[in-house]
Amino acid sequence: MTVQHSATTFTVADTAFEHAALIALDWGTTSLRAYLFDANGDVIAHCASTAGIMNLPRSVSAGGFDAAFEDACGVWLDRAPRVPVIAAGMVGSAQGWAEAPYVDAPADADALAAGIVRVGTDRGIALHIVPGVIQRGELPNVMRGEETQIVGALADNAALGNGSASALIGLPGTHAKWAVVRDGRIERFYTFMTGEVFAALRDHTILGRTMAEPQTPSTAAFLRGVAVAKRTDHAGLLATIFSTRTLGLTAELSAEEQSDYLSGLLIGHELCGLAAVHPQFAVEPLRLIGNEALCDRYRLALAELGCLQTTLVKDATERGLWRIATLAGLVGEARPAVARRAG
Amino acid sequence: MTVQHSATTFTVADTAFEHAALIALDWGTTSLRAYLFDANGDVIAHCASTAGIMNLPRSVSAGGFDAAFEDACGVWLDRAPRVPVIAAGMVGSAQGWAEAPYVDAPADADALAAGIVRVGTDRGIALHIVPGVIQRGELPNVMRGEETQIVGALADNAALGNGSASALIGLPGTHAKWAVVRDGRIERFYTFMTGEVFAALRDHTILGRTMAEPQTPSTAAFLRGVAVAKRTDHAGLLATIFSTRTLGLTAELSAEEQSDYLSGLLIGHELCGLAAVHPQFAVEPLRLIGNEALCDRYRLALAELGCLQTTLVKDATERGLWRIATLAGLVGEARPAVARRAG
Repeated sequence: MTVQHSATTFTVADTAFEHAALIALDWGTTSLRAYLFDANGDVIAHCASTAGIMNLPRSVSAGGFDAAFEDACGVWLDRAPRVPVIAAGMVGSAQGWAEAPYVDAPADADALAAGIVRVGTDRGIALHIVPGVIQRGELPNVMRGEETQIVGALADNAALGNGSASALIGLPGTHAKWAVVRDGRIERFYTFMTGEVFAALRDHTILGRTMAEPQTPSTAAFLRGVAVAKRTDHAGLLATIFSTRTLGLTAELSAEEQSDYLSGLLIGHELCGLAAVHPQFAVEPLRLIGNEALCDRYRLALAELGCLQTTLVKDATERGLWRIATLAGLVGEARPAVARRAG
Repeated sequence: MTVQHSATTFTVADTAFEHAALIALDWGTTSLRAYLFDANGDVIAHCASTAGIMNLPRSVSAGGFDAAFEDACGVWLDRAPRVPVIAAGMVGSAQGWAEAPYVDAPADADALAAGIVRVGTDRGIALHIVPGVIQRGELPNVMRGEETQIVGALADNAALGNGSASALIGLPGTHAKWAVVRDGRIERFYTFMTGEVFAALRDHTILGRTMAEPQTPSTAAFLRGVAVAKRTDHAGLLATIFSTRTLGLTAELSAEEQSDYLSGLLIGHELCGLAAVHPQFAVEPLRLIGNEALCDRYRLALAELGCLQTTLVKDATERGLWRIATLAGLVGEARPAVARRAG
């Protein structure tokens, strides 16, 4: 495991630790990111490691969670031992450090703060784990980590957080999430396995065999895929994806273009599926959270589908963790409330 | 490589070889099946091996195709050296023994016979390779091997072959094909990557991690998946498949039920996609060709979607090979025409 501390960690003056107010962890399946905040809610240091919950430096029974936590945050806690610690993501799943049961949708930031679960660390301090959100029904949906990013996106926008208009927030990725937010609440959401399906098709089906890694991404091939998904005369995703191969056989797509075409097809199918269940899709303000290059692909695809009002939200994770920590009383004036709230 | 000769091979009396009229090969990517016909078009011996074109006993440059051909048919050709030989399937692809260029749809059996390509064997006789079919357009489709099975299905049914009514023929499998047939012609067809997508999702995504191999297939879980795909209020396949996991998380699907549920979902999405592009779907006679257990799953799913007139076609491959060989003049009275027709 490698811990990459940002340069700021080592240049932070000892005096700065007097202002340290919160350590916040974004702890997922394959990575762990840690942020040190001052009392103003500004990040004064951060670090990242590959110690996701499925990639701990030791086994769980040998103290793997504590070891990863110490690797990431020990240097900060040695200097600021009383700083509260909050975490979001898969660390709160059944396979995580401690399970933080899902909060039911609709859910707002207060409900998330109220659902925090505490786990004791070897260092003797508590880690406060933010719960995920579940939407029950015939096709249930779950999220862990994205709820915190959504709270961060809302923190940025008073109108979104408090107005009565609804908005769509998209979080592209392995499992893309799309949440309908109203009055600061996650009303309902959808999960699309777009990223993982793309990788499985490319790496484990016949479609990958005729693909070559492109030197530079082909926007034209990507948009061609989006345009095919948008058509109403095709037989669905299981049929359209085969054209990745047949357009190669007929020399209409080069080997280098096929992966971008397939990516456009899948993202196009995702967005058309979303539009089918959320007709306001094209007219609402729309926010994207995530990897910038991937969000750029989504913006291109969204524009092709008529959605031009797309905003990229930055630092959503950090801001969401700060906001939930504030509501839970871990930082700011409300701090004494924490002992009562967090079980 | 293992060649499994049927028992009949060894009990066929030497005198029977006097009546041998055709050797026909179904030569795909991962298997090779050979049939010995008498002059009545009855199969008097057959064998199967794993020597598909991607699994030859030696490299192509070391005579891999000839070696596989000899392993399968040498014992018959030693006794009946003048019997003509026909083959269909991936053996005619660019990666096969010799490329038999695709015939354009609409295509009938005569067009397939006319498109036969001959390749010389070490034994000094010709192998006659049936071409595949291509449907050009914005989403091209190709088939190799299935065209011969469809001809076999038509051979069985004068009304289908010659009437003016159209019919749908489905060939479930790794890449399921659905062909619209009219007046004995393959008018157009679709490819659904259902089988390969199922395997990729089960073996290479998070969905497989919570699955357990069922002791017996769960028809209820399968039909539940079909019913979900049939709903009009979902966000498409990329979203519905995630419910395989979340219904497990909410204890609504056991680990043993999840693979049948996913299978039902995918087959359901395939059939709904087909219905979208072929509205006559539910009212036409419908034939299925392929593995019986898989065809049974399709019949269940089709019934759930209102298609009750489903017939399973048996021995379609053998009968299609025989019919195309007849039209090409390889067997029967027209035999002298072969030298002229097959280039």
